[in-house]
Amino acid sequence: MRKLPRKVQIVFEPDGLRSNVNPGVTILEAAKICGIKIRSECGGHGFCGKCKVIAKTPEGLTSLSEREKELLSNQEIKKGYRLACQAYIKGNTVIYVPEESRITKRETLIEGVMQEVEISPLVEKFYIIIPKPSLQDLRTDFDRMIESLKDIYNLEDLEIPLELLKTLPLKLRDANWKVTATIWNRKRIISVEPGNTTQKLYGIAIDIGTSKIIGYLINLLSGKVIATHFIENPQIIYGEDIISRISHVMKNPQTLEEIHSLAIKAINEIILKCCEKAGIEQTDIYEAVIVGNTAMHHFFLSINPKYLALSPYVPAVGNPINVEARELKINIRPHGNVHVLPVIAGFVGADAVGDILATKIFEAEKIRLTIDIGTNTEIVLGNKDELFTTSCASGPAFEGMHITHGMKAVEGAIEKVKIDPETFEVHYETIGNTEPVGICGSAMVDIVAEMLKTGLIDRTGKFNVNKGAKRFRKVNDEHFFVIAKSDETKSGAPIIVTQKDIREIQLAKAAIHTGCSILMRKRGVSTDLIDKIFVAGAFGNYLNIENSIIIGLLPDVPSSKVKFVGNAAGSGAIMSLISKKEREKAKEIAKRTKYIELAIDPSFHMELAASMYLPHKNLDKFPTVKKLLEKRGLIKAS
Amino acid sequence: MRKLPRKVQIVFEPDGLRSNVNPGVTILEAAKICGIKIRSECGGHGFCGKCKVIAKTPEGLTSLSEREKELLSNQEIKKGYRLACQAYIKGNTVIYVPEESRITKRETLIEGVMQEVEISPLVEKFYIIIPKPSLQDLRTDFDRMIESLKDIYNLEDLEIPLELLKTLPLKLRDANWKVTATIWNRKRIISVEPGNTTQKLYGIAIDIGTSKIIGYLINLLSGKVIATHFIENPQIIYGEDIISRISHVMKNPQTLEEIHSLAIKAINEIILKCCEKAGIEQTDIYEAVIVGNTAMHHFFLSINPKYLALSPYVPAVGNPINVEARELKINIRPHGNVHVLPVIAGFVGADAVGDILATKIFEAEKIRLTIDIGTNTEIVLGNKDELFTTSCASGPAFEGMHITHGMKAVEGAIEKVKIDPETFEVHYETIGNTEPVGICGSAMVDIVAEMLKTGLIDRTGKFNVNKGAKRFRKVNDEHFFVIAKSDETKSGAPIIVTQKDIREIQLAKAAIHTGCSILMRKRGVSTDLIDKIFVAGAFGNYLNIENSIIIGLLPDVPSSKVKFVGNAAGSGAIMSLISKKEREKAKEIAKRTKYIELAIDPSFHMELAASMYLPHKNLDKFPTVKKLLEKRGLIKAS
Repeated sequence: MRKLPRKVQIVFEPDGLRSNVNPGVTILEAAKICGIKIRSECGGHGFCGKCKVIAKTPEGLTSLSEREKELLSNQEIKKGYRLACQAYIKGNTVIYVPEESRITKRETLIEGVMQEVEISPLVEKFYIIIPKPSLQDLRTDFDRMIESLKDIYNLEDLEIPLELLKTLPLKLRDANWKVTATIWNRKRIISVEPGNTTQKLYGIAIDIGTSKIIGYLINLLSGKVIATHFIENPQIIYGEDIISRISHVMKNPQTLEEIHSLAIKAINEIILKCCEKAGIEQTDIYEAVIVGNTAMHHFFLSINPKYLALSPYVPAVGNPINVEARELKINIRPHGNVHVLPVIAGFVGADAVGDILATKIFEAEKIRLTIDIGTNTEIVLGNKDELFTTSCASGPAFEGMHITHGMKAVEGAIEKVKIDPETFEVHYETIGNTEPVGICGSAMVDIVAEMLKTGLIDRTGKFNVNKGAKRFRKVNDEHFFVIAKSDETKSGAPIIVTQKDIREIQLAKAAIHTGCSILMRKRGVSTDLIDKIFVAGAFGNYLNIENSIIIGLLPDVPSSKVKFVGNAAGSGAIMSLISKKEREKAKEIAKRTKYIELAIDPSFHMELAASMYLPHKNLDKFPTVKKLLEKRGLIKAS
Repeated sequence: MRKLPRKVQIVFEPDGLRSNVNPGVTILEAAKICGIKIRSECGGHGFCGKCKVIAKTPEGLTSLSEREKELLSNQEIKKGYRLACQAYIKGNTVIYVPEESRITKRETLIEGVMQEVEISPLVEKFYIIIPKPSLQDLRTDFDRMIESLKDIYNLEDLEIPLELLKTLPLKLRDANWKVTATIWNRKRIISVEPGNTTQKLYGIAIDIGTSKIIGYLINLLSGKVIATHFIENPQIIYGEDIISRISHVMKNPQTLEEIHSLAIKAINEIILKCCEKAGIEQTDIYEAVIVGNTAMHHFFLSINPKYLALSPYVPAVGNPINVEARELKINIRPHGNVHVLPVIAGFVGADAVGDILATKIFEAEKIRLTIDIGTNTEIVLGNKDELFTTSCASGPAFEGMHITHGMKAVEGAIEKVKIDPETFEVHYETIGNTEPVGICGSAMVDIVAEMLKTGLIDRTGKFNVNKGAKRFRKVNDEHFFVIAKSDETKSGAPIIVTQKDIREIQLAKAAIHTGCSILMRKRGVSTDLIDKIFVAGAFGNYLNIENSIIIGLLPDVPSSKVKFVGNAAGSGAIMSLISKKEREKAKEIAKRTKYIELAIDPSFHMELAASMYLPHKNLDKFPTVKKLLEKRGLIKAS
């Protein structure tokens, strides 16, 4: 007879959380069970090395894997560090989860640009006094209610969900026939409440980002944001990026329901917190508007996202979707409406529709460009006549991934860097003015730009180690450049930039520039015809515009033409929550905007290669940068 | 410490079913628990005396109650008879449930009149071959499906439930992009199936009667009924009549859900049985049409019916209702449609709408009258120009209730009676040609008519015991008339008619005639203007037309003008399942038909009193009967 495997105990410190698990699960999996959120940007595939934990009782774990030997330093190995996704539990064990390996809260740019919009929400409240039934007036309860709504407010052809209808007879009589009906889109009755409650009408806009979810609670009578709240997207335990999460579903379709539920739970937490902050009830919220990229959109609706990851990457549905809150288990008024903004393509989602709405690019006379920078960067180009969009895999380099000392823009991150052109000394600023811990995206842009301007790298990005800069060091035949010296940092080790790090930034900016170039060619416009560039996304807001142009991340336009719009997707969601017209526009935008598939453009590879140069192979596209480099003697005057 | 009451065991014979119950429940309640259906026409209130059972171990029960002493004969008491609703269980006990106390299957008139209708069901199937996605064709799955439907079938603005949308990506690819879409009302996609399934399209019409539920399975391609099935309405355990069931809900609102679920379960059983008979799957049924009186309508939808029992008796809703099958847990295709036909008033339900549809009274040039006889009788009068309806509490006398030896039209029931005008001998026929057990409604009409024609009762209904009829007997100063002698009957006791029995029939027919009279006056028509009388309902079909006119149950018209239409409500449901036009008409009918509240008509009481006479106080309204009675010398020639 085979013995059933006994369960073993795992304890997580310093939390003290414990669980009995089957031998053979990874530490990461056990952490999930205990509700401990450990970073796993690569989705538990042993590539990112972010899930470092310390084994207090190593004998309870399998021995070091090849991947761990590769990703952990000797010192770390000595200290008992393990990768949570690589170490399997075989006996009772105690694991310490250090702060840097946890998914924690960080500063988030919640606010985005907001345009003035007319306050005309789709949910409306109507107070009515209904004539009581009598032997002379034998109309049904429903008829006498809707006829009152027609007589007083001229509302016609109203529908009512069966669940509401069921409670109507008692509700109307308990309220002595004085009730407030809430109606969605002048079509569907979503609530009948006793008395006059017309002064309570709220909505919530939710932006589901791949890494964070933000909620904006709105008073729909004033159109004002009265509370906001955000949390990390808990789906991160299934991978930091979209593809990791989708691949989980491809391997095991049942995961879809789990990943879906994580979003719903997070949204409900946000709703609860916003309500607490504003002092209202969740049932005072009658509509929620949801925005997110196409994968988030599919996960939210529990639609299998498999084909978003397989060529030709088509979504299951693009149209705007309206569904009862109770069906999605969103904790607002049960028959309230959940509106999901439309998506444009597999990699241009409802968030891009929100960007377009918030930046009003679709109504502009002159040509405008919107760039929403993220792991996936959505680009929109056009004006009121025609809109083109595309998406490029810019990768997570700007968020600190794949960069030796890269990190997100949280406390301790170096966020600004300057290099002295004479001494090559480095000046930096950190978030929170603390000792530096790592380098965030905006500083990486500065570093590449500063190194180019000072001749420390050439236009191909190659280190120029013969410039005499003392900050170039060499270990194992490989050069790196020191940004913060060991005596300045928290860990006591220097913070450095490697040749590979520079390449990662070049790749990311090349992808974005290629997208912009191809859209501009499709639209037949040159850089100088661009009236305005909107840079959206949390990252964008901290960017140095000049440096972004110097490395070729942004087209060469006067700084005054560049505007940071923050979380424009969220702003778009708010606008279409407040205003019926804006919601109609969102639908129109999704229909009108033409998606351009970069991969099938014949010039794609050529353009991508040329864009790898700093700022570009063809310097004539960046006249300001050309002039600067000429002036500094770094290139020959043409 | 209080002892918990020990459970006691009850055994039901001859079934052998047993259960452990708490002491203090009635035998009726214990029977419900065991799933034994005992008659309780009064809803367990101790009035009808139909729940007779035999206590094999009387010591396990409370002693005889006053009600039992009243309702049981001395002989029955001697034999150990008890009323199941009155005897409480106090110890282990064995109970025998005799056949006559069981709710059993009986002959049911399933078929009704059917009009020719155009076959145009609301559910339609469309086979499509969808272009596969490619880098050149990046439309979403949903868009490419609905655009195919538009291109080939010109279908536009289609909606899809989220649940179906979720499965779309895998379903389309698994089917290699060749699918059949089922669409309801050219508006809502309710199913997407692989391959071409257009040859499978079924619907079911369900008539929820107070006492029985009938299902008609229809092939929606041919419009033909391919299977029928009916079962007793299991709600009968909450009372035989509507008011008993509603009063249960008024006492305990939670009962609503139970009574509702009984209907749903019964309907699902009918669906299953029909599918078995026809050899199809339940998921091959895409739409169900439901018809029933207003109380059944409310119970079906789980709407609190309380206010149907309280003046002014208004329904919660009258409009036709469409709801997804899965929401009501009706076992057809989950997103299939359940259509509930509209109701007109608290006591004129969807069944009356079905009657009107099936008899085409609303399209007639000449004035027609429809009478759907039941415990509650719905009357409709009018033509294409104007329709009036009312409802009268005719009571259950025609179904055998409140009649000494009354019974339903099942085997052993006397169904036809003739009395020899010379000898006053009685000739009768029984259903199944067996020994008589009791008298059903149609025979009661015969008895009253025959007794009037032979002078055994006068025009007020009073026994004329001085006529020398030997069949009049006298016990305790009370006269009765023997229909079947003791040596002819199964029980060995005579089957009789009492003075009170005659009064019950007079009351019932007076109620119906009053309804007809008041409608005729409202509509301004006299009897001779009536072109046709439709008599609907199972009872009607066995009626003797002439006798019905003689007692004043039907207006005095030539027999050729009277047509029995059987279960017209069911026919109406079938018609509106098969044909979109008929469904539209049903909606129109419910809107157009004017409900007349008899109680507030000033002439109501006068007319009711006059209608108590046989056939009526005013003999001029019944010229044929007048002539007959004159001829027989029973009244003086005027």
